[in-house]
Amino acid sequence: MRNFKLTVCYDGGKYRGWQKQGNTPGTIQEKLETLLSRILGQETELAGSGRTDAGVHARRQVCSFRADTALSCGELLSLLRRYLPADIGAVSLEDAPPRFHARLNCAEKTYLYRIWNSDAPNVFERRYMLAYPGALDIAAMRAAAALLCGEHDFSAFCSNRHLNKSAVRELRRIDIEKAGDELRIALTGDGFLYNMARIIVGTLLEVGSGARAPEEMSGILLSRARESAGATAPALGLTLWEVRY
Amino acid sequence: MRNFKLTVCYDGGKYRGWQKQGNTPGTIQEKLETLLSRILGQETELAGSGRTDAGVHARRQVCSFRADTALSCGELLSLLRRYLPADIGAVSLEDAPPRFHARLNCAEKTYLYRIWNSDAPNVFERRYMLAYPGALDIAAMRAAAALLCGEHDFSAFCSNRHLNKSAVRELRRIDIEKAGDELRIALTGDGFLYNMARIIVGTLLEVGSGARAPEEMSGILLSRARESAGATAPALGLTLWEVRY
Repeated sequence: MRNFKLTVCYDGGKYRGWQKQGNTPGTIQEKLETLLSRILGQETELAGSGRTDAGVHARRQVCSFRADTALSCGELLSLLRRYLPADIGAVSLEDAPPRFHARLNCAEKTYLYRIWNSDAPNVFERRYMLAYPGALDIAAMRAAAALLCGEHDFSAFCSNRHLNKSAVRELRRIDIEKAGDELRIALTGDGFLYNMARIIVGTLLEVGSGARAPEEMSGILLSRARESAGATAPALGLTLWEVRY
Repeated sequence: MRNFKLTVCYDGGKYRGWQKQGNTPGTIQEKLETLLSRILGQETELAGSGRTDAGVHARRQVCSFRADTALSCGELLSLLRRYLPADIGAVSLEDAPPRFHARLNCAEKTYLYRIWNSDAPNVFERRYMLAYPGALDIAAMRAAAALLCGEHDFSAFCSNRHLNKSAVRELRRIDIEKAGDELRIALTGDGFLYNMARIIVGTLLEVGSGARAPEEMSGILLSRARESAGATAPALGLTLWEVRY
């Protein structure tokens, strides 16, 4: 059995997210597994670096799978590109070491949240950015972001209960950059809980609008209570940007 | 009656083009006129700088209209932005001199045709670029483009018969630039016939692929016969970039 590392990108707008849900169609994992199984003539299971929510995009999602095939990586990549729908792309495919696993070996991820901070229209990127025309205090958002970085229990920034699982993650960097009318919030960490990136962005937007003070972040973390953090920012603005091993 | 200059942008993917067609819905002009008439409480007719075909986009389309209203341009612009669908944007609105007419006064237009010249996927801009993975000889395309520039009868690059109307236009510049995997063909002229930009691009692609020689361009122009030019490039890659007065 060979072991493969596959990198894909997708426009998540029409999907129920990355993760397969039983026999329900409409997930990206299911689309890819069905196609790979058909091309390879054998049941093929993908391990993604992690889930992305319904509507979230990926510039580079990494997954791994095992298969018994004589096809070269180039041949397999061409076949994937030929049959994938226009909103899922196969970026690269390579043979991986036997023990490589896209989720278990993942060292760091970067998510990018894009905000169109203007009341001028942006029709061409409307599917990939949150339209937020109100004024934003970027210095306050950066101060709040700094308090969230580091190793913390992020239960307050997670939409489901973690019960016995640890909610401790290391959020390594939050970079907030304004480029013209676009505000880009890049979050880098060793792992992200369910909805974590979107709740952090939603909370930072509430800081930016003046509804919250940056200093509240430490109390929110300590509370470990979802209701103390801000709203979950919409999925369409979020893109899984990079996965590092 | 005041006279207005309105600049709009649109993702033309779901529309039957700019120009109103009787009572058939689905054109951009009809969407805008219906909304303006409703806001202003009076039948309002728009004059666009020119038509764009079904599926063609506009970064800046200019139109003019007359209306009797006490609303300021800022108020009217806000109302337009509030009620326009997400794929049509109101960029700017200003009072224009009484004799200003978006079509009759138009001095120059630039169209941009975008080509994704790679077999790597580009899922996020797939609606705005032609995917053309084959090799392209850009030097040959530039040589052909140079022969098309100038004042010519462009009948061979027009999809409908012009009968008694002149098909003479001045094509002032064709700039062909490669940026990474993207090829951008910008066409600037004093006016464009029906499908002219797309037939020029389709013909340049045939030169780039080696199917035609650059020198053929002069003969095609002289023939004034549509069938001597190349195929009409797909609408989705074309954007009306700028209109000058």
